Amino acid sequence: MQKRRSHPGTGRDVVARHGCPLGTLCTDLGNREDDLGPEAAKLMSLVLDWAEDQFRQLNTDDPRACAVHLLTGVQGGALLANAFRDPDLLTRHVRHLEEWIDSLS
Amino acid sequence: MQKRRSHPGTGRDVVARHGCPLGTLCTDLGNREDDLGPEAAKLMSLVLDWAEDQFRQLNTDDPRACAVHLLTGVQGGALLANAFRDPDLLTRHVRHLEEWIDSLS
Repeated sequence: MQKRRSHPGTGRDVVARHGCPLGTLCTDLGNREDDLGPEAAKLMSLVLDWAEDQFRQLNTDDPRACAVHLLTGVQGGALLANAFRDPDLLTRHVRHLEEWIDSLS
Repeated sequence: MQKRRSHPGTGRDVVARHGCPLGTLCTDLGNREDDLGPEAAKLMSLVLDWAEDQFRQLNTDDPRACAVHLLTGVQGGALLANAFRDPDLLTRHVRHLEEWIDSLS
């Protein structure tokens, strides 16, 4: 797997100001009684499946669990960075996730 | 397949159905231009400060970073569990967080 390095520049500022577009969409639609919540979840599944495939290529023991760990980390980091309007929180958090990925190989 | 017993009202089921109340509040208010976002963030800060104090009592190297790691994990887990309406995702994720805390002491 070619490791994708994120170097948050303006991206981190946008997330700190508005949150993750996909995460906020899932949160906005997740409480509805109609079918829009599951539709938003399909988009999240695409990202999760992609991440699982990357971890599979790294020969990790449980690529699905690793993908969930990564995505929960990204979504939680985006949520807190947005709550505190703190891009640096996101930068530090992404660095920890990168170190975790490095520790797997 | 044995039908899964439903335990309505238990924490994980409520979170999977509606998300974390505090996280969704911060997301809902985080995009506004008024002062309600920072007010919601104050509630998140209370949880973060409490967690930091717990990690300090565990004599961890960086109790603030540990608190952020825990809270991002909890919030990200709640978001994904809600997106996928999957209480088991939350259970597994919380177990990993507990194992991480155990590894610190």
